[in-house]
Amino acid sequence: MSIEAVDFFYLSMPKVEDIGDGSQDALVVRVTADGVEGWGECEASPLVSIAAFVTPMSHGACKPVRDVVLGKTIDSPADIAAMSAAVEMECMDLLQAAHTFSGIEMALWDVLGKKRHAPVYELLGYKRAYPKLPYASQLFGDTPAETLAGCRKARESGYRAVKCGWGPFGKGTLKDDRDHLHAAHEGIGADGTLLIDAGQIFREDVEAAAQRIAFLEEVNTVWFEEPFLGGAYAAYAGLAAKSPKVRLAGGEAAHNFHMAQQLVDYGKVGFLQIDCGRIGGIGPAKRAADYAAAHGVTYVNHTFTSHLALCASLQPFAGLEGHRICEYPFAPKSVAWDMSETHLTPDANGEVNVPAAPGLGVTMSAAGMKRYLVDVEISTKGRTLYRSPTL
Amino acid sequence: MSIEAVDFFYLSMPKVEDIGDGSQDALVVRVTADGVEGWGECEASPLVSIAAFVTPMSHGACKPVRDVVLGKTIDSPADIAAMSAAVEMECMDLLQAAHTFSGIEMALWDVLGKKRHAPVYELLGYKRAYPKLPYASQLFGDTPAETLAGCRKARESGYRAVKCGWGPFGKGTLKDDRDHLHAAHEGIGADGTLLIDAGQIFREDVEAAAQRIAFLEEVNTVWFEEPFLGGAYAAYAGLAAKSPKVRLAGGEAAHNFHMAQQLVDYGKVGFLQIDCGRIGGIGPAKRAADYAAAHGVTYVNHTFTSHLALCASLQPFAGLEGHRICEYPFAPKSVAWDMSETHLTPDANGEVNVPAAPGLGVTMSAAGMKRYLVDVEISTKGRTLYRSPTL
Repeated sequence: MSIEAVDFFYLSMPKVEDIGDGSQDALVVRVTADGVEGWGECEASPLVSIAAFVTPMSHGACKPVRDVVLGKTIDSPADIAAMSAAVEMECMDLLQAAHTFSGIEMALWDVLGKKRHAPVYELLGYKRAYPKLPYASQLFGDTPAETLAGCRKARESGYRAVKCGWGPFGKGTLKDDRDHLHAAHEGIGADGTLLIDAGQIFREDVEAAAQRIAFLEEVNTVWFEEPFLGGAYAAYAGLAAKSPKVRLAGGEAAHNFHMAQQLVDYGKVGFLQIDCGRIGGIGPAKRAADYAAAHGVTYVNHTFTSHLALCASLQPFAGLEGHRICEYPFAPKSVAWDMSETHLTPDANGEVNVPAAPGLGVTMSAAGMKRYLVDVEISTKGRTLYRSPTL
Repeated sequence: MSIEAVDFFYLSMPKVEDIGDGSQDALVVRVTADGVEGWGECEASPLVSIAAFVTPMSHGACKPVRDVVLGKTIDSPADIAAMSAAVEMECMDLLQAAHTFSGIEMALWDVLGKKRHAPVYELLGYKRAYPKLPYASQLFGDTPAETLAGCRKARESGYRAVKCGWGPFGKGTLKDDRDHLHAAHEGIGADGTLLIDAGQIFREDVEAAAQRIAFLEEVNTVWFEEPFLGGAYAAYAGLAAKSPKVRLAGGEAAHNFHMAQQLVDYGKVGFLQIDCGRIGGIGPAKRAADYAAAHGVTYVNHTFTSHLALCASLQPFAGLEGHRICEYPFAPKSVAWDMSETHLTPDANGEVNVPAAPGLGVTMSAAGMKRYLVDVEISTKGRTLYRSPTL
């Protein structure tokens, strides 16, 4: 098959709020090869990732992603890997290229799976997909009472695992943080799985983060996510050495396999969180999952947007039975919900199952996407480089 | 002072060729604060970096760079550092933001230096600026004879140091590479400084790169640059262990301080090459220079574009006397030359001196830039987000 077209659809809520909710907009990609359509999603900042697809070349190692993708052959997983390697070399100096290509790469796997009538996880070498335990991801409340109410609601909605993050955590007193942690614990229940996300609030300050470890242990926190800036591996390793029970989690910002590997090797995380919409797609994410599994680290998807992104992000670790927890878009904005007809709702056991259908197993909704399509136009020298396609 | 305006000027040669010459286009930034104008330059892919300045917000940690910069106070180096930290947090999920902010950050130092009538290196804490030995950077020829001619020409033009890179290196036989290396050595002369840039050609293959070490030693190569993908630290460290004489160089892709630190700590490089137009500007580059100096690593600028970029990139290590070598745009395209009136031509000793003038010490040329200005328009929802300003 030859890649005939790559179309980007920038979807957005009418109003995007200044809150930590990543489901307010989306960049959906459609790849067409020999009449087969595949879908993927880039994370985040739609306009910038579109620009990286269409931008004029700066030099031989700074080409638009378009030049590396259009017209290329896609008949096997090896073809996808070759294209990923070509993007690394030919778009070397174009930082955003990794995000742009991530959605395209997902769509290429979708195309290939549809062509071969096989789910993507089978193309990745997995014999079957194991169910995952979804966690409901939410912000800490402004007060402990709000945090309690939020976690209780998640539990009542059937979630056995909850992640609380951002908001006031790390910004007030130690007592404030402790109160929020106990509120979350009470809300999710003593048998629930509690995950805490610090949202990089401590930057590189190991001592400040370490002061919270005893409180995290009191409420049986399973992981402590992103206490520091994504690349501050020495800080991660320093805190990991002080926290034998509560293991660290990180990796969502990784925009290539090596950054994921580094968090394991140098950051000493216990949980590796990979966003398929950033790391370069499903192929590098699978490599990260293999690396994690081989090093005693648990792989987890990072997914805060749609069920298209969710279906893609589950593939790389679908066959790893022991890697149980998955991030699940708990309360996405309507744009993230409406874009697809397929939704992975938890089953009677409260678990999420990867579709056994060909490709990513997602049926998109043209009507759903159409309601949120943002009209974009980019031109240079009077020539239009991009105009939002119709749906 | 308050930041009143940030204007981006996308400059380009009429035709950009598919070669490894990064001087074919440029993104120049002008920051205006209380009537003082400062200038900076982002590297690379102008359109994408402009998009990261104006893109609509995706969520609270994925804002356009504009929202973090416009209207902010700039009275001290601490204000610049605070703005850098704010970009890290508020543009956390916008990958290209680091490149966009890099040019702005340079311009902020330029503004501050002009306001205080001090060169930027003084604001960074250096008492004086030491001259640097410029190396002429060029591509390997298609044949050893071409490589010889290119290096001879550089030597005849007064350069005592030459870097050869990319082209056929690593793509043919070992003998081919050896022939090119000896040709380069002959061209630059036995007392010349020879630097070799592999352009990431060996990806992660330590053995393939290690096969060249003996040849590099034969011609007294001072550094072996980017044998591998930028983040493949384990490969760098593996090769470093096999190459005690020829030390490795890398770091141009670092888009934050930590990536630079990691190349020192984990990649075991001997030379740390930082592009101020990518790492977030002069502040993080200075931090990288300090880190390198404290760890027995030599800091070098990475500059393949204009003399504006050169003046900025020399500041972070201007006061480090022992860090002698500097990359110098040897044969830039006219767009990179014409944009400024100031040019740092080597002195009688063949050395380059950082201007002792206020700020970056660069006078831009409106007429020069005007000839290369690319007309760009970006709009969403029928509203213009960016249109090329006039000069």
